[in-house]
Amino acid sequence: MNLDDVLAKIDAELPAATDRLLELLRIPSISTDPAYKAQCDCAADWLVRDLQSFGIDAKKRPTPGHPMVVGHIDGDGPHLLFYGHYDVQPVDPLELWDRDPFDPAIEDTPQGKVIRGRGASDDKGQLMTFVEACRAWKEVHGKLPCRLTFFFEGEEESGSPSLVPFMQENAEELKSDLALICDTGLFESRVPAITTMLRGLLAEDFTITGPDRDLHSGMYGGIAANPINVLARILAGLHDETGRITLPGFYDGVPETPPEILEQWNRLGFDAEKFLGDVGLKEPAGEKGRTPLEMIWSRPTCDVNGIWGGYTGDGFKTVLPSKASAKLSFRLVGTQDPEAIRKSFRDYLESSLPPGFTVEYRTEKGSPASQMSVEAPAFEKARRALSDEWPDEAAYVGCGGSIPIAGYFKELLGTDALLIGFGKDDDNIHSPNEKYDLESFHKGIRSWARVLDALTRNA
Amino acid sequence: MNLDDVLAKIDAELPAATDRLLELLRIPSISTDPAYKAQCDCAADWLVRDLQSFGIDAKKRPTPGHPMVVGHIDGDGPHLLFYGHYDVQPVDPLELWDRDPFDPAIEDTPQGKVIRGRGASDDKGQLMTFVEACRAWKEVHGKLPCRLTFFFEGEEESGSPSLVPFMQENAEELKSDLALICDTGLFESRVPAITTMLRGLLAEDFTITGPDRDLHSGMYGGIAANPINVLARILAGLHDETGRITLPGFYDGVPETPPEILEQWNRLGFDAEKFLGDVGLKEPAGEKGRTPLEMIWSRPTCDVNGIWGGYTGDGFKTVLPSKASAKLSFRLVGTQDPEAIRKSFRDYLESSLPPGFTVEYRTEKGSPASQMSVEAPAFEKARRALSDEWPDEAAYVGCGGSIPIAGYFKELLGTDALLIGFGKDDDNIHSPNEKYDLESFHKGIRSWARVLDALTRNA
Repeated sequence: MNLDDVLAKIDAELPAATDRLLELLRIPSISTDPAYKAQCDCAADWLVRDLQSFGIDAKKRPTPGHPMVVGHIDGDGPHLLFYGHYDVQPVDPLELWDRDPFDPAIEDTPQGKVIRGRGASDDKGQLMTFVEACRAWKEVHGKLPCRLTFFFEGEEESGSPSLVPFMQENAEELKSDLALICDTGLFESRVPAITTMLRGLLAEDFTITGPDRDLHSGMYGGIAANPINVLARILAGLHDETGRITLPGFYDGVPETPPEILEQWNRLGFDAEKFLGDVGLKEPAGEKGRTPLEMIWSRPTCDVNGIWGGYTGDGFKTVLPSKASAKLSFRLVGTQDPEAIRKSFRDYLESSLPPGFTVEYRTEKGSPASQMSVEAPAFEKARRALSDEWPDEAAYVGCGGSIPIAGYFKELLGTDALLIGFGKDDDNIHSPNEKYDLESFHKGIRSWARVLDALTRNA
Repeated sequence: MNLDDVLAKIDAELPAATDRLLELLRIPSISTDPAYKAQCDCAADWLVRDLQSFGIDAKKRPTPGHPMVVGHIDGDGPHLLFYGHYDVQPVDPLELWDRDPFDPAIEDTPQGKVIRGRGASDDKGQLMTFVEACRAWKEVHGKLPCRLTFFFEGEEESGSPSLVPFMQENAEELKSDLALICDTGLFESRVPAITTMLRGLLAEDFTITGPDRDLHSGMYGGIAANPINVLARILAGLHDETGRITLPGFYDGVPETPPEILEQWNRLGFDAEKFLGDVGLKEPAGEKGRTPLEMIWSRPTCDVNGIWGGYTGDGFKTVLPSKASAKLSFRLVGTQDPEAIRKSFRDYLESSLPPGFTVEYRTEKGSPASQMSVEAPAFEKARRALSDEWPDEAAYVGCGGSIPIAGYFKELLGTDALLIGFGKDDDNIHSPNEKYDLESFHKGIRSWARVLDALTRNA
């Protein structure tokens, strides 16, 4: 099937596609606020109608929370599933918006035209890039190039409580050869990117107790072990001088980044000095011998997220406290096993406590990293397709944080996910004055047409 | 002059002496609460009258706060000065008292008779042990065995704001050969003790800042230095594996405890296991190769008194925080110089910060240790006198905390202080149901008579 005709159709249809997106943006589908329940429902209905308008068998599917939207269309070749979310973040503080967040508009800016409004980038605009690509394809060719499933949720911004149960209950229906997700961005707002590594997370929240009451540091200082001193020693002992984490077995399952990926990353020209300088820092502080992008994408970390103990008010109190507490998290990569690392950490912690000390743990949070199998041909096909659309060559990138949905596809359905998105760093997602560049929207639609073509042409 | 007659007089006068103490205890001289200003004044007047009643030239002396009481009597031999304080701690929570704190009484308990009431032990009862010893001596011999100055303050429980200026303005009048202070206790409620070492204190209260805002630990974790991790490493680095403090020059001026003092301490039979067990701990945690009493009396320490940073609420937040803070104190001994150690600490801290980090300090508190010259003959004379009165042999002991008045006598007047007291561990000072054992009061008076005798006999 001819791609150029589809791209031409997309170009011609851009004003109509933009109008459709503006319609969807007018629906204030704030999932976290019960006051907007009907509006979430309304956004789901809008999507069902829109998918039906070009021949998708779409239905609203109830959950204990906001509904899912699932649509199917048959076709030859592979079965692809596209995921997006129609819910948006709250808009407060409203006074910081330059316009009503739910009265979206196209604005001219020195950097080009933007679609301004809550959800423009996260994720209604990104979701519609795929929908519009499919609509154009269908209108040009009368059918789609493969079997397709559309899967939209309405609770992504409020923790996706219904997502895993729904995927489990409808696993057969949602199983596909590859999941496509459009909820990420261009690297440095410029380079088309496929996110192939997402770090996992292991969190520990704990309190150590030494003396059974607060002591006077004059009377007991020097003989009584001080829980804050002990905690500091435990936390400091988690890294060695080269920045490596010292827990036994911690690096089990941490792969070396393949040389060809490292080369791609080097070509990205990532400016670590600027990245750090923008937040007041000077030098990369991670493992010695690793590039800055390895530090944030493909290497595991250990950060203390919170610490407290003893007297923290004004002035001074010479207390030798009974307790000291910390919240700690490890970012995980490769096939690191959160539970094995939790055990290794707790063994280390407990063996580091002086006699008589106890520890209480408060959390059980842990999720492994997601690493896509980039050797699957689909990844390289998609990367070349993106490179054809954008001035820069597309790259496989990592993501230091977690995108749980990618892990769910792998874990629950055994499907790899192709994470492609067109957001820019200045889109103000989750903030006032959210926007999506018209370029992101337009080239995003064209990108998906190219990716669909690339993934199905030889299938 | 005959000591036995004085001791017999003390025994005979005990009921009258107890009545006098009860009178003083009925005056609610709570110095920290402005509502009790008149009562503090009233306690000072009571003391002036009481000193005058046996021939002391005593006067109330105004200060910007509560008045001092200063009394003089001439005599042959050395000039001794006695210090005590007539103010008391607040009494709340009142509902935990078994009787009105200012309606004192002699109570029978399974452990013997006690004087119950606020101030019974701290410090009115202790102060009166010396006054009653002098009264008995005067009544038996018609004069005292030496020149004496009585010096009572009314602000000890509220930070002694007027004390240093008053001592400076009246330095000539208050200069003596030796200061006597009765505001300490029996070692383990049993062994008469002269406190000859008081640790000093150096406090630091600071915040380190890394990134100029809180960061997402997914996006920045691994490349951005985390101020809490950095702070933990700095704090942990203050001790080596043997428990010694690592700051350059820290041990300058830390003397080895003389063997004869160590032997005395060993004979005290200090039960470190019980001392620690009472607060839920098991093992001494100080410097390796030091005895428990060295750890709390004659060795310097470094304790973190408070720490805070990042997210400390319920649940979890994957923040890489901008700041981390700690309050830290060093207990000092010998001639350690607080300002030299502050500089060494700050040099260490600042050289341990990653590039771009800054530190802000909030405190300037520091005072050197007090160490009495026990080779002065007065100390050994007093120790033998105490040993004569009590079943256990008297000992020179240390005090892990600070008693600022002892330092002031040395610093402002060049006078050593003989700290002798008869309080017991269960006296509940600063707490509800404060008491002073009648035995402490009675044998305390007798002890001072013996000490006066010993210090003046060959003079």
